[in-house]
Amino acid sequence: MFPDSEYISYFRSDIDAMSGYQPGEQLNLPDLLKLNTNESPYPPAPGVGEFLRTGDYSHLRLYPNPNSDPVRDELANCLGLERSQIICGNGSDDILNIIIRCFSSPSLPIACLRPSYTLYPTLAQLNGAPIRFVDLTEDFRLPDTETILKSASDANILILTRPNAPTGNTFPLSEIEAVCAGFRGIVLVDEAYTDFAEDSCMTLFGKYPNLILSRTFSKSRALAGLRFGYAAAHPRIIEGLLKMKDSYNVSYLTQMLAVASLRDHEYFKDCVAKIRSSREKLLQGLLKLGFSVVPSSTNFLFAMPPDSNGERCFLELRKKNILVRYFAGAITGKYVRITVGTDADVDRLLKTLEGIYRS
Amino acid sequence: MFPDSEYISYFRSDIDAMSGYQPGEQLNLPDLLKLNTNESPYPPAPGVGEFLRTGDYSHLRLYPNPNSDPVRDELANCLGLERSQIICGNGSDDILNIIIRCFSSPSLPIACLRPSYTLYPTLAQLNGAPIRFVDLTEDFRLPDTETILKSASDANILILTRPNAPTGNTFPLSEIEAVCAGFRGIVLVDEAYTDFAEDSCMTLFGKYPNLILSRTFSKSRALAGLRFGYAAAHPRIIEGLLKMKDSYNVSYLTQMLAVASLRDHEYFKDCVAKIRSSREKLLQGLLKLGFSVVPSSTNFLFAMPPDSNGERCFLELRKKNILVRYFAGAITGKYVRITVGTDADVDRLLKTLEGIYRS
Repeated sequence: MFPDSEYISYFRSDIDAMSGYQPGEQLNLPDLLKLNTNESPYPPAPGVGEFLRTGDYSHLRLYPNPNSDPVRDELANCLGLERSQIICGNGSDDILNIIIRCFSSPSLPIACLRPSYTLYPTLAQLNGAPIRFVDLTEDFRLPDTETILKSASDANILILTRPNAPTGNTFPLSEIEAVCAGFRGIVLVDEAYTDFAEDSCMTLFGKYPNLILSRTFSKSRALAGLRFGYAAAHPRIIEGLLKMKDSYNVSYLTQMLAVASLRDHEYFKDCVAKIRSSREKLLQGLLKLGFSVVPSSTNFLFAMPPDSNGERCFLELRKKNILVRYFAGAITGKYVRITVGTDADVDRLLKTLEGIYRS
Repeated sequence: MFPDSEYISYFRSDIDAMSGYQPGEQLNLPDLLKLNTNESPYPPAPGVGEFLRTGDYSHLRLYPNPNSDPVRDELANCLGLERSQIICGNGSDDILNIIIRCFSSPSLPIACLRPSYTLYPTLAQLNGAPIRFVDLTEDFRLPDTETILKSASDANILILTRPNAPTGNTFPLSEIEAVCAGFRGIVLVDEAYTDFAEDSCMTLFGKYPNLILSRTFSKSRALAGLRFGYAAAHPRIIEGLLKMKDSYNVSYLTQMLAVASLRDHEYFKDCVAKIRSSREKLLQGLLKLGFSVVPSSTNFLFAMPPDSNGERCFLELRKKNILVRYFAGAITGKYVRITVGTDADVDRLLKTLEGIYRS
């Protein structure tokens, strides 16, 4: 069956030539401490479990609401927006994909920060679109606005990740605003981690018709397994994005559980506060061990071990059943990215690091 | 906020110019008989409900298996395939989208049947790919192989829908095989309705390395709300398709519930048998009322009312709270597409049609 010699590729040649995106490992070992993909250490809101236990599963025989209107209405209510300003997706991956397909092409380049989320260049490749990089400064700050606009001058869409990943730091709102005002194209601010930050670009919303904000339920809402993300933008932008999405891109259960999560605001605030507090504890512990740590506005820390060897740190921790994320590269390779877990997780990690760096 | 005068479009111009795909209506009226989107009248397998009631919802905090391996393994087991021959998607919409993006482009046209599923030309447009149509004969049969190959001669991918929608009929396996052997490109057989048919193209699988089969859980498995579809193909094709999909395209719940559905084979066979029996009942009733009906291998009938006026039939039924599907067009406009419901649904529909066509 299928002798390899008979196989001829009919793939687009650029797809054949590329390698796919590598998501963080999803291992299932006993006693594994998984701090590599920025998941929440807490379960989703109790209302999620309640819906699953008591909901009428026979609804699953019917197609879901095509545009996820129940979630759009709940989000609009929470954020003070209109339904027409929101699009929902099967994770923010789906949202990013829809946006990139709408605003880029082989003749419409994409610009994004570097270092930043490595999925953007992959999505650009999958869409056959050229990519332009806006290099951050050595301490991961934005360059001045003029430099940003120059680096992205021929791009039709510029992605700003705020707070940034994998570095974890945020950028002044005023600098984002200056880019929105000056850039001739779409500015997409990826706010995947904004719930852990001090502020968000939602305060700029409505002022700049070229601004799109995207968010996810995978981090602060502890629903990575559910796949839910959304974007907010000018109604005319949302209208166009809706054409690109799959007809029924968000499942019935995802819609219902996203609503359940949004309704439990106290639980959400409580989990975020706990993670921010554990982040401080982790930060202090790492500093004591001689790590350099980028100021974080997220649920992870980008940390440089005393020997500036990210790979060694990653490998040593892996031997002890602790998984963190390592990104090869001249700059990123000096660091590891560590998800903030519970206080107990932080204790275990610090103790293990002590064994590695104090011996 | 957002004065419309300030809005400038940065969309790809072809996206601005197109209108989106229109899925069937999802109304929620009391007493509505919904026979317009080919959903199952029966609930999903009992194991689906059981998993929801008893499953551990705290798993949702973690990302799901990126390639849906638990479902691939269960499918491989059911179908006698290998995991490496299967890709899973967020509905077969996701699968079709992934395939079309991999094998078409502005310089790689797509070919599909006409009349057939109207989503294909929309997906081609969204990908900027030219579309070629293979016209069916007047009674919706395939033209001879030479004509098919000629109509699709410059296409890189040819989509054959078997059984076809919205017409409901199937095509001889030998004709599909001749196309697989003769076509210089990918042959995608969309088998969304194959569980209601007498046979499937799985019997050709392994013989033609350019063959892809796609299937859905939305119809025969009563899981339209879940969003699950898959494709089977040569491992080298699957490898390439996996690069294009979103990193975590199928949610944890969708994976677990798809497995639960596959494990309850008796329930599945029973539901399909009931629908095939109700299909026969509906067919006989329609023939008695003077309808012409295309022979169906699906869970719907494509039926021409005595006055050859599909739109009138659709509108009259709508007044009586019965929703069927109408497709405008010189040929399709003479018909309505009616989903096969339960025997009670069939009785109500036939009684209502009697009131319309016997008065």
